[in-house]
Amino acid sequence: MSIVLGDNQYGKAETRVVRIDRDAEAHRVTDLNVSVALSGDMTDTHLTGANDKVLPTDTQKNTVYVFARDGVGEIEEFGLRLARHFVDSQPTVGRARVRIEQYPWTRLELEGAPAHHSFARSGEGTRTAVVTYDGRQAWVVSGITDLVVLNSTGSEFWGFLKDRYTTLQETRDRILATAVNATWRHEGAEDTDWGKSYATARRALLDAFAETYSLSLQQTLYAMGERVLRTCPEIVEVRLSLPNKHHFLVDLAPFGLDNPNEVFHAADRPYGLIEGSVLRDDAPPAGMAW
Amino acid sequence: MSIVLGDNQYGKAETRVVRIDRDAEAHRVTDLNVSVALSGDMTDTHLTGANDKVLPTDTQKNTVYVFARDGVGEIEEFGLRLARHFVDSQPTVGRARVRIEQYPWTRLELEGAPAHHSFARSGEGTRTAVVTYDGRQAWVVSGITDLVVLNSTGSEFWGFLKDRYTTLQETRDRILATAVNATWRHEGAEDTDWGKSYATARRALLDAFAETYSLSLQQTLYAMGERVLRTCPEIVEVRLSLPNKHHFLVDLAPFGLDNPNEVFHAADRPYGLIEGSVLRDDAPPAGMAW
Amino acid sequence: MSIVLGDNQYGKAETRVVRIDRDAEAHRVTDLNVSVALSGDMTDTHLTGANDKVLPTDTQKNTVYVFARDGVGEIEEFGLRLARHFVDSQPTVGRARVRIEQYPWTRLELEGAPAHHSFARSGEGTRTAVVTYDGRQAWVVSGITDLVVLNSTGSEFWGFLKDRYTTLQETRDRILATAVNATWRHEGAEDTDWGKSYATARRALLDAFAETYSLSLQQTLYAMGERVLRTCPEIVEVRLSLPNKHHFLVDLAPFGLDNPNEVFHAADRPYGLIEGSVLRDDAPPAGMAW
Amino acid sequence: MSIVLGDNQYGKAETRVVRIDRDAEAHRVTDLNVSVALSGDMTDTHLTGANDKVLPTDTQKNTVYVFARDGVGEIEEFGLRLARHFVDSQPTVGRARVRIEQYPWTRLELEGAPAHHSFARSGEGTRTAVVTYDGRQAWVVSGITDLVVLNSTGSEFWGFLKDRYTTLQETRDRILATAVNATWRHEGAEDTDWGKSYATARRALLDAFAETYSLSLQQTLYAMGERVLRTCPEIVEVRLSLPNKHHFLVDLAPFGLDNPNEVFHAADRPYGLIEGSVLRDDAPPAGMAW
Repeated sequence: MSIVLGDNQYGKAETRVVRIDRDAEAHRVTDLNVSVALSGDMTDTHLTGANDKVLPTDTQKNTVYVFARDGVGEIEEFGLRLARHFVDSQPTVGRARVRIEQYPWTRLELEGAPAHHSFARSGEGTRTAVVTYDGRQAWVVSGITDLVVLNSTGSEFWGFLKDRYTTLQETRDRILATAVNATWRHEGAEDTDWGKSYATARRALLDAFAETYSLSLQQTLYAMGERVLRTCPEIVEVRLSLPNKHHFLVDLAPFGLDNPNEVFHAADRPYGLIEGSVLRDDAPPAGMAW
Repeated sequence: MSIVLGDNQYGKAETRVVRIDRDAEAHRVTDLNVSVALSGDMTDTHLTGANDKVLPTDTQKNTVYVFARDGVGEIEEFGLRLARHFVDSQPTVGRARVRIEQYPWTRLELEGAPAHHSFARSGEGTRTAVVTYDGRQAWVVSGITDLVVLNSTGSEFWGFLKDRYTTLQETRDRILATAVNATWRHEGAEDTDWGKSYATARRALLDAFAETYSLSLQQTLYAMGERVLRTCPEIVEVRLSLPNKHHFLVDLAPFGLDNPNEVFHAADRPYGLIEGSVLRDDAPPAGMAW
Repeated sequence: MSIVLGDNQYGKAETRVVRIDRDAEAHRVTDLNVSVALSGDMTDTHLTGANDKVLPTDTQKNTVYVFARDGVGEIEEFGLRLARHFVDSQPTVGRARVRIEQYPWTRLELEGAPAHHSFARSGEGTRTAVVTYDGRQAWVVSGITDLVVLNSTGSEFWGFLKDRYTTLQETRDRILATAVNATWRHEGAEDTDWGKSYATARRALLDAFAETYSLSLQQTLYAMGERVLRTCPEIVEVRLSLPNKHHFLVDLAPFGLDNPNEVFHAADRPYGLIEGSVLRDDAPPAGMAW
Repeated sequence: MSIVLGDNQYGKAETRVVRIDRDAEAHRVTDLNVSVALSGDMTDTHLTGANDKVLPTDTQKNTVYVFARDGVGEIEEFGLRLARHFVDSQPTVGRARVRIEQYPWTRLELEGAPAHHSFARSGEGTRTAVVTYDGRQAWVVSGITDLVVLNSTGSEFWGFLKDRYTTLQETRDRILATAVNATWRHEGAEDTDWGKSYATARRALLDAFAETYSLSLQQTLYAMGERVLRTCPEIVEVRLSLPNKHHFLVDLAPFGLDNPNEVFHAADRPYGLIEGSVLRDDAPPAGMAW
């Protein structure tokens, strides 16, 4: 028996870069959190500490800033540029994975018109992208996280399995609330209109959440994934992770009061967690996408 | 020398109550975090553990839920109802302080129209209220927190004091970003239109932030407070706590590149923290407001 | 009516400085989070943006690092040095307040002996100090935070006030758990042995928590404050903020099981919050201590 | 082209259960965060909302509490009991995954001896276990997280790759700090002495961190994994995720001072992230372990 090095990667995580585009009178803000992970021929540094094949994580950080100097564009494009650079410029780097989060800012109003230079951080969800490149192929996974939504009715939960530990009452009307965490992969990634694709997928997620009369959060999850696939032909698989943010009806009977679905306790923990993938039956294998 | 009990208070903190108003076809969501603190004749429980003057914090939580059954209305009103109840119904409670945070939800769109039952948590800042009542008088402090804003230009910082430890370069164009934390108190609290007052104050804060050409964050702070006072005659004092969320221009010279105010590093810590009060010169003393 | 500037202060918050003392074979780690707040003649910068009386927060950060070069010592001493420096060296600064948090590190073991250069962050609570200096007098408040403790028995809660909203059952045996947040002030601050005082006060808090048979968390709070005062003659007032971290006995009756105080649900929110001061009856006024 | 359901699972996440063992005079505290994820024949609930194959997450939570009534033991055992129960009792559940975090508590001292009923939450890292069971086989992954360690010397970084974006200076003496996140899998999981194995692996991680003269964090990572494998014959693979918590030497030259590795700035973001696996060359495939 001997001991060996297995899979490994390293990189600079959470470089916070903000770019201001100032070429038009109305500035644009691009606010990113960029994490790089490289893998390749890294045995030496693990076994002997010889670093001649190690591109420092500090250099990776610098590279993110330098590349932002030329403009960011859509985060998928920025990720592709970075990932290709690391692999193509360094023989010892066999694979690069770049994860980007983009925080949304909306333009403030100024005297009734959109302000040119003033912005507020908005809550419409954080856009994400993970790009993986191995020297031959690129995989792009786009997504959204921290999108908190709630239906105040139109959700039931009944007819479920009961065993000796089941005490939950069936309900024909409950609050359904979740924080959407969705990712999706594209076919033929390179020539996608990423901005349009993101906007369409985001809209599809919200529409399906609002329009689905729900008998289970799983049903809503599937409807959301299906809607994305139906409205975005370039997307071949959607993965969703949906916490069931419980809102418990408060029992007011001890105080002589009814509670016709009006007063709820919003619980922190525990919560349900529903995870699933929805995909085209002709989707190619996910490969290194996730 | 002997040892005595000083100021004290107790209560239930962070009761998370969500109310759905279902009387109209379009539901309304009120999402609150309510903290109660009571003080009064509490010496016994501290010295001997005799609890006959202690209204349990669990009861306080129940009371929040029960009162929400009758509707919440504006959070200042809800706080006043609760604070008055605790003091007026319990002889041993001399003062009640109720702090409420209200999380904003916006209506989703459904087929081009505002949805009736579907909502997204938005990022436009958390509305706050702190109500204090002592059996005779009520103090109401309204506010907003977690309102993150950024000006991409229109901010300078120069001409400052320099001592032997000063290395900061002067700048004629920087990013100014902060997370607004503002509170304000009202004169003649009881008959205020709280909803309108909040909307007007919030608007004033944003307008002043966007419109002020800033030579220091202090100047912006004062302008924001002043604007609130000028647009809201019922408000007599504004207190602001503004972190200076530094965006440092990245030095790209080592890479042979300039950086004309385009690429920034958004730092976490340390940060500047600018705090100040702006008030009418005829404002009555703050008393127990804060 | 005109509008005026009220109380204000500004400074650099959360400068994270780590000092390694390397003079002995066994290194020592001092890990601090330092926040400075200055106030004084700051009207100009608020009203016109003229900054000639403003010492930049960046300079304050530099000063923290420079002063750490000469050694830190006890955090109260470090705070006093910094606060005095800002007030005494800058005519426009009338008052300085320095808040310091010190994170505890314990020495790892190496071959059965304490390691010289290797440490683990420990969980024994964060030491704190707030020093205020106005050019004539200094106030020092020491403290501890994030010290999470639990008694698995020896706690009752009964005999409390009941109103129409009370449903809580009395209990003769419950878990009592809290995260101690304590601060205390000293008489004749300057010549205190701060390290010994902190260790003694911390020990007193833990001893009183463990030894007090508790009929209410208020009783425990008072016992903790009293113990500090009795064991530390240099301390004249203790303020405690104790969340009641509820552990609810799980009802296993639906499953045909009893639950003899063995299985609990640890709740996040809401929680009780018990706050109080314990002081000597001859304590001087707190002044600007807190 | 049609749309299909892919991999999916659901369950109750983060059930916070605390068990007090009271059979001996000295109580014992077991403080857990338990997350269950079930998968199996769940197509109906996704496609039609028919829930007759869905065991509610509320039931899963109840089951955790009920099983804790019989005692918890080592968390790997508790996870195995729970995972087997869900799969073996429900025909529609094909696989159960149970993740458990155990928070450490240490006994307070009381009059010089270990207290029987009083505890403090300690900072020695959170113990973890993930158990997966598919009806035939069980996979157990144990681990530790939140173990923050620092070497004040004995770490170099030089000889690394340099490209046009490299500005990092080589160093022969730096601080090396990380928050250990380690997981490991066992061969022949069932008859392991889990408590002893955990203690031995934890000790090995700390020893290797302290004893390794480090030329890169990768070298330290490998040494830590290797040490675990050498001291724990039952463990066949270790995976480590080590953030490089940068401590930057502060440049004091502008103030006429040197800085002989004494004063550092502890940065939040970005940070390096070093991830790797160390395994026996005869280790069986990981299967569903992770």
